[in-house]
Amino acid sequence: MSSNPVIAMLGRKLRLAVIGGGPDSFIGGMHRLASRIDDRYEIVTGILSSKPVKAKKIAGEIGICSDRIYSSVTEMLDAEAVRKDGADVVAIMTPNDSHCEYVLASLARGFDVICDKPMTNTVAEAQTVHQKVKETGLIFCLTHNYTGYAMVRQAKAMVQADEIGTIRLIQVEYVQGGRADENDPDPSGDIPWRHDPEKSGPSLVMGDIGSHAHNLVRFISGLEIEEIAAEVGSIVPKRQFHDFAGALLRFNNGARGVFWVTQAAAGVENGLGIRISGTKGTLEWMQEIPQILTFKPLSAPAQIRTPNGPGTLPLAAHSLRMVAGHPEGFPEGFANIYSDAAEAIAARRSGKQANPLALHFPTSADGLAGIQFIAAAIESSSKGGHWVKCATF
Amino acid sequence: MSSNPVIAMLGRKLRLAVIGGGPDSFIGGMHRLASRIDDRYEIVTGILSSKPVKAKKIAGEIGICSDRIYSSVTEMLDAEAVRKDGADVVAIMTPNDSHCEYVLASLARGFDVICDKPMTNTVAEAQTVHQKVKETGLIFCLTHNYTGYAMVRQAKAMVQADEIGTIRLIQVEYVQGGRADENDPDPSGDIPWRHDPEKSGPSLVMGDIGSHAHNLVRFISGLEIEEIAAEVGSIVPKRQFHDFAGALLRFNNGARGVFWVTQAAAGVENGLGIRISGTKGTLEWMQEIPQILTFKPLSAPAQIRTPNGPGTLPLAAHSLRMVAGHPEGFPEGFANIYSDAAEAIAARRSGKQANPLALHFPTSADGLAGIQFIAAAIESSSKGGHWVKCATF
Amino acid sequence: MSSNPVIAMLGRKLRLAVIGGGPDSFIGGMHRLASRIDDRYEIVTGILSSKPVKAKKIAGEIGICSDRIYSSVTEMLDAEAVRKDGADVVAIMTPNDSHCEYVLASLARGFDVICDKPMTNTVAEAQTVHQKVKETGLIFCLTHNYTGYAMVRQAKAMVQADEIGTIRLIQVEYVQGGRADENDPDPSGDIPWRHDPEKSGPSLVMGDIGSHAHNLVRFISGLEIEEIAAEVGSIVPKRQFHDFAGALLRFNNGARGVFWVTQAAAGVENGLGIRISGTKGTLEWMQEIPQILTFKPLSAPAQIRTPNGPGTLPLAAHSLRMVAGHPEGFPEGFANIYSDAAEAIAARRSGKQANPLALHFPTSADGLAGIQFIAAAIESSSKGGHWVKCATF
Amino acid sequence: MSSNPVIAMLGRKLRLAVIGGGPDSFIGGMHRLASRIDDRYEIVTGILSSKPVKAKKIAGEIGICSDRIYSSVTEMLDAEAVRKDGADVVAIMTPNDSHCEYVLASLARGFDVICDKPMTNTVAEAQTVHQKVKETGLIFCLTHNYTGYAMVRQAKAMVQADEIGTIRLIQVEYVQGGRADENDPDPSGDIPWRHDPEKSGPSLVMGDIGSHAHNLVRFISGLEIEEIAAEVGSIVPKRQFHDFAGALLRFNNGARGVFWVTQAAAGVENGLGIRISGTKGTLEWMQEIPQILTFKPLSAPAQIRTPNGPGTLPLAAHSLRMVAGHPEGFPEGFANIYSDAAEAIAARRSGKQANPLALHFPTSADGLAGIQFIAAAIESSSKGGHWVKCATF
Repeated sequence: MSSNPVIAMLGRKLRLAVIGGGPDSFIGGMHRLASRIDDRYEIVTGILSSKPVKAKKIAGEIGICSDRIYSSVTEMLDAEAVRKDGADVVAIMTPNDSHCEYVLASLARGFDVICDKPMTNTVAEAQTVHQKVKETGLIFCLTHNYTGYAMVRQAKAMVQADEIGTIRLIQVEYVQGGRADENDPDPSGDIPWRHDPEKSGPSLVMGDIGSHAHNLVRFISGLEIEEIAAEVGSIVPKRQFHDFAGALLRFNNGARGVFWVTQAAAGVENGLGIRISGTKGTLEWMQEIPQILTFKPLSAPAQIRTPNGPGTLPLAAHSLRMVAGHPEGFPEGFANIYSDAAEAIAARRSGKQANPLALHFPTSADGLAGIQFIAAAIESSSKGGHWVKCATF
Repeated sequence: MSSNPVIAMLGRKLRLAVIGGGPDSFIGGMHRLASRIDDRYEIVTGILSSKPVKAKKIAGEIGICSDRIYSSVTEMLDAEAVRKDGADVVAIMTPNDSHCEYVLASLARGFDVICDKPMTNTVAEAQTVHQKVKETGLIFCLTHNYTGYAMVRQAKAMVQADEIGTIRLIQVEYVQGGRADENDPDPSGDIPWRHDPEKSGPSLVMGDIGSHAHNLVRFISGLEIEEIAAEVGSIVPKRQFHDFAGALLRFNNGARGVFWVTQAAAGVENGLGIRISGTKGTLEWMQEIPQILTFKPLSAPAQIRTPNGPGTLPLAAHSLRMVAGHPEGFPEGFANIYSDAAEAIAARRSGKQANPLALHFPTSADGLAGIQFIAAAIESSSKGGHWVKCATF
Repeated sequence: MSSNPVIAMLGRKLRLAVIGGGPDSFIGGMHRLASRIDDRYEIVTGILSSKPVKAKKIAGEIGICSDRIYSSVTEMLDAEAVRKDGADVVAIMTPNDSHCEYVLASLARGFDVICDKPMTNTVAEAQTVHQKVKETGLIFCLTHNYTGYAMVRQAKAMVQADEIGTIRLIQVEYVQGGRADENDPDPSGDIPWRHDPEKSGPSLVMGDIGSHAHNLVRFISGLEIEEIAAEVGSIVPKRQFHDFAGALLRFNNGARGVFWVTQAAAGVENGLGIRISGTKGTLEWMQEIPQILTFKPLSAPAQIRTPNGPGTLPLAAHSLRMVAGHPEGFPEGFANIYSDAAEAIAARRSGKQANPLALHFPTSADGLAGIQFIAAAIESSSKGGHWVKCATF
Repeated sequence: MSSNPVIAMLGRKLRLAVIGGGPDSFIGGMHRLASRIDDRYEIVTGILSSKPVKAKKIAGEIGICSDRIYSSVTEMLDAEAVRKDGADVVAIMTPNDSHCEYVLASLARGFDVICDKPMTNTVAEAQTVHQKVKETGLIFCLTHNYTGYAMVRQAKAMVQADEIGTIRLIQVEYVQGGRADENDPDPSGDIPWRHDPEKSGPSLVMGDIGSHAHNLVRFISGLEIEEIAAEVGSIVPKRQFHDFAGALLRFNNGARGVFWVTQAAAGVENGLGIRISGTKGTLEWMQEIPQILTFKPLSAPAQIRTPNGPGTLPLAAHSLRMVAGHPEGFPEGFANIYSDAAEAIAARRSGKQANPLALHFPTSADGLAGIQFIAAAIESSSKGGHWVKCATF
């Protein structure tokens, strides 16, 4: 995209089919909003509920043409695959345990795919997805949306431009309070799918937010985690799922790090934060005030970097619509992932070169790394905190 | 809108015709983005340049159907007024001196109108626009977008709920650095329209940003300014337009205030800020970190109010799409103005009652008050800073 | 002083006689604390109450030797003036209406003087004090302590070093909530001296805090205010003293400014803040977080300047005792005024040159300028807000 | 102390003998400043250098009477122990390896002791010191000064008052940049004592700042660390001493925590910070802005707690000299430790009850816990990050 959204309106919009994200889902609405912001997509069909009758009802309500209202994902994919004006892209925002199936079904029919995180629940599934993406050459975009924030991308660009030197130390934390109250959700009510490890994966806190923290570290630093010493567990009583995880990290360049995620910190909203120190300085960013990136050089005054403010690098400028002083928010960060995927998809379909600045959205390789990281954290935790290797493919 | 954007997708989108806002215009792209965010509009036609050939070319580029590509505003309005699927709404984002003409032309043909601020350049024009809006009963929405921010609306709702008591003191400032450099724009180049008082109005700084500051004060406080003692002038040498204004204010309930706006504060990005003190406490808000509203009660600890955080009132919740901790930005604030106007327009067209929470967008009455305020400030300044009455209609 | 307080301990301590500041006075304790911090003074005598019996009792309690316990200021000054080991300096922290008398009495006996602000209640008194100081050649230090903060001094030094260029725009505000509650102090109880204009001067808010704001502006900018257009008044009902003042300012270099002070902003603690914009950038400082000075250059990222952090200039380093990252506070800022006065007094007494970095404490000239500013603000306010000249001596 | 420092001036000052802290030492000057702030001490003698000639010279320079200028610590302690007006208290601020010897020598002669941290270099020494303190019944105060900050004490008091409920999660970090530059200190120059493990202890980063972080956690939470899984090491190349440490923590009530300290984070000044989450809310505090304590309740807006602001609890009020809005700093936090020790020492000597609010300074038990924690961290690190028990005495 560009600072003038007119440009974004050029060319045919991509036709999007959505799976999941019905009226009770925050993330579903978020995906659709993200798809609209830069006008690169139009939603042409969707299955927003796993119940056929309800799925058809919702599709009508959100304005899907009657000839594209389907009962099931398979029916939709089959039909759209053969329509002349069929969907180009499938966006998946269902419970985690179904990601793998829907991704594979979509790839098999030639659709590019946008998928919510975590990519899958198991390493085996993640490897399968990654393998299929590579085989098909289709675009696979995983919505680790926090790496869509412009100032996160500015941080990555500053690292790449050697503005902080060789990275030595990384701290990442993702602290939320949404699961601090032991009576919420009401234990006598229905169990939300996230509280069922069959659906949400082996570690709720790691899948929900740990995977974001992991992706953020890798995105900005460009480093891989080689070893991890971790504890993953439940701090709120009577709870069957993980609500905190701590870890020490060793990176492939010798850097050291620390990782802390929890959803049980009462009163905290959405505290994702990172500090990366290199030989030349330190970068600090916090999601709750995403428009500020603090840069502390080794021997010069600390700087407040702002969106499109002085010193903005091309990757950040590419990720912004507003002039300086007009803060963009969470929706625009999410939209950056969608719009960059659109650029890549349009390029793939046309055989042209994509804008290289657009090629920073998370892929199946990133998704696989995330699932491997979760597995390693659980392994270390079960082995008394000992260092374990973190597989990198 | 609602916290689940699915709801926003219900019902027919409004058909939007745009006037102005071509590729070089920041605000044009912003208007179009705002119209997309909640999916309440579709742009069906537009004249994005005052030059007929260029206007047609741009219309094609942004995907306007060939049978709705026009050469002039008049041609467009005439044609759309009689089409069965003609535009419902006209959005105007041209230089200030043409607002009045285009608004009147649109109203005369029965279109609801969304217009960029300031509403007009003169009080007489503003009175005419306001009179016509009242006569026609059509919806007129002025995009003083800063009052679309959720936490500004939270502030207004807290004032209405008597959380700060009777208002006594108001400080507002709008400090920018965009015109601090005396060589920018290059004095040897073309004069931008904003630098020509014929086009941008009698006081550039007051029209550009003073009108926003004025609107913000009235929106949150619910008070009117009765008297003003002001200085309006140019601080950067060799400059023909105003770049700063200061004023003391007296409100209709006896409260006192201070007002300071400038575009010549080197290095400042977009520093719109307000502090309102009542008998029970003080509210503070700054546009550069719009997700935080600070509330300082008389005898209790200061509070950080956040979007959809604890204590969020209905007007703010109505203005938010995200759950707590996921900051929305400038585009969403702007979109709130657009989406609330959509609600009002749809209600007017259907004869149904609009959601009362949607009826807080700026109207022609607000626009007129703004132009009267600018006139009073200039009058006081020319009279040696003496207090002058600020007309309220 | 120096970053190593050992140095400060060199040489004989100055013998200090205090007038005022008994057990119920915050500022009295603050003065004595300030005198201790750098070990440049020892309190040898004092009259801490205007009631002779009480004065003697308190003197005993704070450890004054029995042969230096006096009944009255005159008795004390007379006796100390002839003792071989008599007081060197008199520190005055009585109600404002007595400052002039005690200063003159002290100067007449050859004592250097440290005096709390405002210097006097009337312009005539201020002129007399200033004249006597000039005639005697004695040191007179006025405790406008906010200009003792290291980062305020860093701001001054940056202005002097042309880091922000030619000053164009100045905003200063001093917002407190201490007099927001109309029932505090209890209207049925004794009237505190501050609420009696006979004792506290013609404008309580201007004497209490307006004088600080004025001093801060002049200290950092090095500019004089030539004209002022002001309103000074009472916003809390049934109040006989001023609790707010607003003003527009014109400086002697053509710069423009705005001034806002109040003690009626419910819930605000001690909000003294300043923003100064020059051709090259803007400085921002707020007293409640005094360890941060924000510098926003015209075309480079904003900087966070910290005490003894990178870019610290000599005047700030001179005003600090701690290494970077160890914030000093209000007491140290106050102590800087005391310790710089000690340096000047010791130099005067020894006939040696004082460290030029120590010669930035407020003097009688600053005190006179403050009283003249208050008078001009009241005059403008009474003349309907018209611009009036602000006398500069 | 009290909000009126007059009170602090009552009674005889304690006579202080200092060991260490010569002109090149930051901490030496800091100790002496801390002893002055509340006027509870007078320095009567001292050995500020390990070199006899230099020690005598410095003693003269700082104003020690000639009959109390000594050549060695032993000579000083012996002489002062028998003087009628001999020292009451010995303050030790020498390199870490000598703490144990000087503490024992002081206790043996009946002096109360104030000692810089870490208490000793080895667990055995720490146990000896702690045992001797218990045996003698003398006061031993360890200057973990960060727990002297008023808002840290407010946090402790809020925990004790159950305002955050049962503690579940603790994050502590101490991030500095002072040892980020691998050429500083100059490797070809003299090795500072801190870089010699014989003098500074087995882990420089843990002794220097890890011990502060550990003390801060225990002070606020009131919990003990039962188990630790850690890595302690050097991240800057060619370095013989530790410059970072990370750890996962298990507390004696089942709470979990994370610990991260480093002196190699380029550009960071003195970033000690803590977040403690209980069942009812979360507290956050950062040393660089020590005047703010953020409290995030489970279901109410986040609060900004300030010194002597609304909600201040007695322990914090006891630790403050200023009214609200007048921030105290690092020196006052350090002085709180000194002044509380003075209260305890004066009470011990007089046989009276000390003010219970003064009895929160760190003791030999805290010092021992700190050394045991460092030992456990090193043990876990050497065992591959496995969980190890953290001894508690």
